[in-house]
Amino acid sequence: MNARIGLDIGGTKTAALLVDDDGRALGEVVQPTDVTAPDRLVAAVVDTVDRALALAGATRLELVAAGVGVPGQVDPDTGTVRMAVNLNLREPYPLRHALQTALGVPVTLENDVRTAAWGAYHRANTARPLASLAYLSIGTGIAAGLVLGGRLYRGAGGMAGEIGHIPLDPSGPRCVCGSYGCLEAFAAGPAIAAYAAERLPAQDGAPLTTGQVYALADAGDPAAGHVIARAASYLARAVYLLVMAYDVEQVVLGGGVTRAGAAFERPLRRALAALRADSPLAAAMLPDEKIVVVPADFNAGVVGAVYLAEAERLPLAARR
Amino acid sequence: MNARIGLDIGGTKTAALLVDDDGRALGEVVQPTDVTAPDRLVAAVVDTVDRALALAGATRLELVAAGVGVPGQVDPDTGTVRMAVNLNLREPYPLRHALQTALGVPVTLENDVRTAAWGAYHRANTARPLASLAYLSIGTGIAAGLVLGGRLYRGAGGMAGEIGHIPLDPSGPRCVCGSYGCLEAFAAGPAIAAYAAERLPAQDGAPLTTGQVYALADAGDPAAGHVIARAASYLARAVYLLVMAYDVEQVVLGGGVTRAGAAFERPLRRALAALRADSPLAAAMLPDEKIVVVPADFNAGVVGAVYLAEAERLPLAARR
Repeated sequence: MNARIGLDIGGTKTAALLVDDDGRALGEVVQPTDVTAPDRLVAAVVDTVDRALALAGATRLELVAAGVGVPGQVDPDTGTVRMAVNLNLREPYPLRHALQTALGVPVTLENDVRTAAWGAYHRANTARPLASLAYLSIGTGIAAGLVLGGRLYRGAGGMAGEIGHIPLDPSGPRCVCGSYGCLEAFAAGPAIAAYAAERLPAQDGAPLTTGQVYALADAGDPAAGHVIARAASYLARAVYLLVMAYDVEQVVLGGGVTRAGAAFERPLRRALAALRADSPLAAAMLPDEKIVVVPADFNAGVVGAVYLAEAERLPLAARR
Repeated sequence: MNARIGLDIGGTKTAALLVDDDGRALGEVVQPTDVTAPDRLVAAVVDTVDRALALAGATRLELVAAGVGVPGQVDPDTGTVRMAVNLNLREPYPLRHALQTALGVPVTLENDVRTAAWGAYHRANTARPLASLAYLSIGTGIAAGLVLGGRLYRGAGGMAGEIGHIPLDPSGPRCVCGSYGCLEAFAAGPAIAAYAAERLPAQDGAPLTTGQVYALADAGDPAAGHVIARAASYLARAVYLLVMAYDVEQVVLGGGVTRAGAAFERPLRRALAALRADSPLAAAMLPDEKIVVVPADFNAGVVGAVYLAEAERLPLAARR
């Protein structure tokens, strides 16, 4: 058996999905990420891989390729990660080389949002063939991953899709980036929690989490409903922005904030309907079926990582 | 001699540029566009081509290809134009076929903003090789043309880059499209003139033109300066949006409004500097040299059309 593994390395945990030759899942594990030092990060990832192999009754000998998604800017030529603050990698780090050496198989390294976009694309493409898709990741930050012409689109410096810092309202709050009224400052998880802290009482003395705000809004709490509706209205504009900028066939929303499920999706659909009601152009460009929220049981990150591993099978000697 | 012609068909006039085998200009003419009926439109374009040929002492026998930019949505497969309201083509019209039949040479048809983007790209690419560029056209409307990976990017339905209707301020004025606070509603020519009409006295009883507002602002008039600064601040955000969405190497601004020259460029540069002052991310992504205003003596539309004509030289029988 030739096994491939997809890895989604996050700031707190690393998810792994092992598949066989035909892409069938052999095992999935989630373990903590060790961010105390780069070599410990690599060792913990290797341990996660070994556990996934053991779970499937396989060994390292059967592993032929790995795909890896990481937060930060990835140079696809050198396999170096930059600005991976969540992984405590403050200096550019040659993560692909380190993982290849440790695992002994070719590793494809990609930014995590782009990796999830690749997973969402393969899921959508199974349902019906499509050439383009935008994946909007909404979590601690907001960014989009793009598939254009059937390929991941990175831009000149790997920054394509960093729409979280596009100013969508000049009178909006100041963002962590310094600009005013960025998408992230309205609709990322921390922004929703911060706005809720202004408008809603704390529960048992603790500030509400973003998930709690969504649950309260869904249960009919008017103040929470206002907070969520505001976030949804900016997310709907972000979806419109993605559709008008790239003219993609589908927009998929994923990331931690979307795990609120129907409590996330219902206000978003209402905000999209409001855009359509104002404008025939929005109505033509934003049909409801073009916009999809990632199902709770689909891990776009690891699936995308598996497909990245599949995409390249160059001999190890030809890679760095 | 094998001559190629580039045509930029606008709602009021049609510009033509004839070049020889080596791309050297042989003649350039501008004539009125006849929008009274589709067949008269075609006849007027043919007349413009014949005048350009005559000017260069050439005949139709020497013409080998034409590239044509038109306002509206162009289907690159069928050569049909849709929504070309400025050309009075209210129904989808097979303009490529009509022009090919009338001229007897292969015609490449493209949306006018995308054609100008192609011209701007070839101009920039002569200075230094580059793979990507966004061209922001600011005139009666606002739209962007994209060159990604050295090729024009159209999107799934030819709508990629239609960023004029992205809502950039929910408290903004209602746009012709029906949405509120679209980029176009702040920074297109008519929006600037309309805002000036609110804030400035008419001159000799006539409302100020956009060009006059720019001239007044440049001369130090504070009310005109406010009007122009507002437009510039939204245009700077649009440039930021283009850079973050596509991560292009260069953003080129062109179109009627940019013909105000330094009066257009100075407030834009100030607005970009203000974005940079707020945000290190904007400072990193928006260096002044990445943003270029088309020089007054460069007609991106006809140059792009010439390069389109060069791009394809299939035998006529293989085309529609």
